[in-house]
Amino acid sequence: MRVTISRKAHFNAAHRLYRKDWSFEKNDAVFGKCNNPNFHGHNYQLTASVTGEIDVETGFVIDVKDLANIIYEEVELPFDHKNLNLDVPEFENLNPTAEYIAVVIWNKIKKRLRADFDLEIVLYETERNFVTYKGE
Amino acid sequence: MRVTISRKAHFNAAHRLYRKDWSFEKNDAVFGKCNNPNFHGHNYQLTASVTGEIDVETGFVIDVKDLANIIYEEVELPFDHKNLNLDVPEFENLNPTAEYIAVVIWNKIKKRLRADFDLEIVLYETERNFVTYKGE
Amino acid sequence: MRVTISRKAHFNAAHRLYRKDWSFEKNDAVFGKCNNPNFHGHNYQLTASVTGEIDVETGFVIDVKDLANIIYEEVELPFDHKNLNLDVPEFENLNPTAEYIAVVIWNKIKKRLRADFDLEIVLYETERNFVTYKGE
Amino acid sequence: MRVTISRKAHFNAAHRLYRKDWSFEKNDAVFGKCNNPNFHGHNYQLTASVTGEIDVETGFVIDVKDLANIIYEEVELPFDHKNLNLDVPEFENLNPTAEYIAVVIWNKIKKRLRADFDLEIVLYETERNFVTYKGE
Amino acid sequence: MRVTISRKAHFNAAHRLYRKDWSFEKNDAVFGKCNNPNFHGHNYQLTASVTGEIDVETGFVIDVKDLANIIYEEVELPFDHKNLNLDVPEFENLNPTAEYIAVVIWNKIKKRLRADFDLEIVLYETERNFVTYKGE
Amino acid sequence: MRVTISRKAHFNAAHRLYRKDWSFEKNDAVFGKCNNPNFHGHNYQLTASVTGEIDVETGFVIDVKDLANIIYEEVELPFDHKNLNLDVPEFENLNPTAEYIAVVIWNKIKKRLRADFDLEIVLYETERNFVTYKGE
Repeated sequence: MRVTISRKAHFNAAHRLYRKDWSFEKNDAVFGKCNNPNFHGHNYQLTASVTGEIDVETGFVIDVKDLANIIYEEVELPFDHKNLNLDVPEFENLNPTAEYIAVVIWNKIKKRLRADFDLEIVLYETERNFVTYKGE
Repeated sequence: MRVTISRKAHFNAAHRLYRKDWSFEKNDAVFGKCNNPNFHGHNYQLTASVTGEIDVETGFVIDVKDLANIIYEEVELPFDHKNLNLDVPEFENLNPTAEYIAVVIWNKIKKRLRADFDLEIVLYETERNFVTYKGE
Repeated sequence: MRVTISRKAHFNAAHRLYRKDWSFEKNDAVFGKCNNPNFHGHNYQLTASVTGEIDVETGFVIDVKDLANIIYEEVELPFDHKNLNLDVPEFENLNPTAEYIAVVIWNKIKKRLRADFDLEIVLYETERNFVTYKGE
Repeated sequence: MRVTISRKAHFNAAHRLYRKDWSFEKNDAVFGKCNNPNFHGHNYQLTASVTGEIDVETGFVIDVKDLANIIYEEVELPFDHKNLNLDVPEFENLNPTAEYIAVVIWNKIKKRLRADFDLEIVLYETERNFVTYKGE
Repeated sequence: MRVTISRKAHFNAAHRLYRKDWSFEKNDAVFGKCNNPNFHGHNYQLTASVTGEIDVETGFVIDVKDLANIIYEEVELPFDHKNLNLDVPEFENLNPTAEYIAVVIWNKIKKRLRADFDLEIVLYETERNFVTYKGE
Repeated sequence: MRVTISRKAHFNAAHRLYRKDWSFEKNDAVFGKCNNPNFHGHNYQLTASVTGEIDVETGFVIDVKDLANIIYEEVELPFDHKNLNLDVPEFENLNPTAEYIAVVIWNKIKKRLRADFDLEIVLYETERNFVTYKGE
């Protein structure tokens, strides 16, 4: 029996959407108010969903405390109350769009899981905008 | 990397569930209080989810402002503060169940997207009832 | 010890904002798209909050089942899946704005409560618009 | 056209995570505070999602009132305001983890549906932890 | 300038509504399914709101980390994953209705605050039922 | 009949808690991770509640479109996708704590309302932390 177990978390961060190799005008045309040079910010809401067989010993797919701890170490600790562009190495040369943040988070959490587990990341940037990445 | 980007929207509309070719008694037996001849209404909550490759230029699958604009033109403008049965041509001869409203919305938005994008529509009729359509 | 106990409920209804004694043009200027002659609708969310002394026998201010039943009889049964303008006598000559709906609900529930209980009605017309009435 | 229709419900129950064939120490090491011998409890939130073809007669996949009634009979009536370990026969020898509760609910609802309908169960144990089971 | 600062928290607990000095029949008549001898449970959602003058040094009424810590020590640690009737001394002879739980929490937090601060407790027992206590 | 009408809005902004006249060490001791020199950010959720008599002509206390427009001009336009410390003049010499942001917003909206209207501002900085200011 394959079951998915999901855990929600959140982090509050500043970011700016722009490319260093583009002019301010081009960044402004593409990214609009998200290109504010002084940054803006979000309460990012994250759901990490792990799919695998139920362990008949425990009745768990994965102990949710372990999953919460992986999210804390890989996402909350390095991202929360940070500036994604300036404080997080993964975005030094990667535009921190919701899409790329989800991909970065997926890669960080996936490498901490057993190889036979599937992972899906849902990331809310605002209450009305969110992205989903399954490693496909 | 295929990522899904989702945008939420809403519209407030009146509707009535019934078939013109059925008697009132048969409509009443099948649709119950949803068959009130004077209509009732809902705050419909919509999530449109577009799946495609990340554009390496922008870091976006689709600019969420463009997606929001498509939803506005195809759904919010023609459906919001309207009577679905009387004011919306698509339902002149189609019973506006949540299922069919989702199908209609899927068709309207899908034709505005690039052909290689997948689309999923989730439509909440109430907080406890919702439908999902993926064009399958 | 005075404690407030609150119960949430909801009803789905059609309505139209307009005054019979005004021209369509004046109604349109004041009420805009809410004046659609074919009606529109909402999922109204209601919270009824009753304040009184804790009954030392039961530990309740009021049994929440009794409060839920009063809301059912006074609000859900007569308003749910109805057209407020056409099906609900209280609005035959009263414009069903959120403000007046809250006042009508307050009056209906208040007369069912013990005289020493205070009542507050919160009514959400949409997720972003709501009104509060305390009988003051 | 295959559409999914989803219905939310909830039940409030006590439970304890432990195995009768393990020592208290081993149960404590694996299940931590969830192993409190006096039980703890949750407001479980359930979404049952049924996927099938739209019935062209009614415009429904399944009448949501019928789905709600199945959930009431199979889940709410036997589980609500109960102790899952002591009052619910399915958990007499099965550890009531969120994973296994979802599997039990899936089995109970699936046997009440038409054979060509697919079923997905999402069960929230807390606002931040939930599981998903599709019968795979 | 008097401002209110509010902090949300939650705890998952089992409880049973009954009075030791009443017969099972009388408890059953008054408390219904809440009187299940094997207990049931809830995810209690708590909001503690502190009102006071803004400290012009810090711009805080109270540091929300301090408020969160008080809630953790006074409520989450002693109540979470516990049986309120059996594990929490305050309810040894007090029926753990939502009303009395709110009063107990108010008393525990109030004594930890500066005397010039006002306190309001809002406690959700379910998504649709909640109580409010201000110490009046 | 005095009724309160409330409108929700939101803005996404970066900020940093610190005082220019304090050392980094003192700012760090008081404001912790909120003192990140590169800023962090939030999705601020705002509710503006206006209390006044119902206008018997319209049935409105205030047209919610007018209230939404005031919020847009006074809060969303100047605060959204901005750095509160660097881009918003009101915080040039005022620490942008949730408390002070609420006071600034109250002052900006209050001066746009009729003198006999009362105003309450609720500002969520995160889902679990919020402040309330009534001008008292």
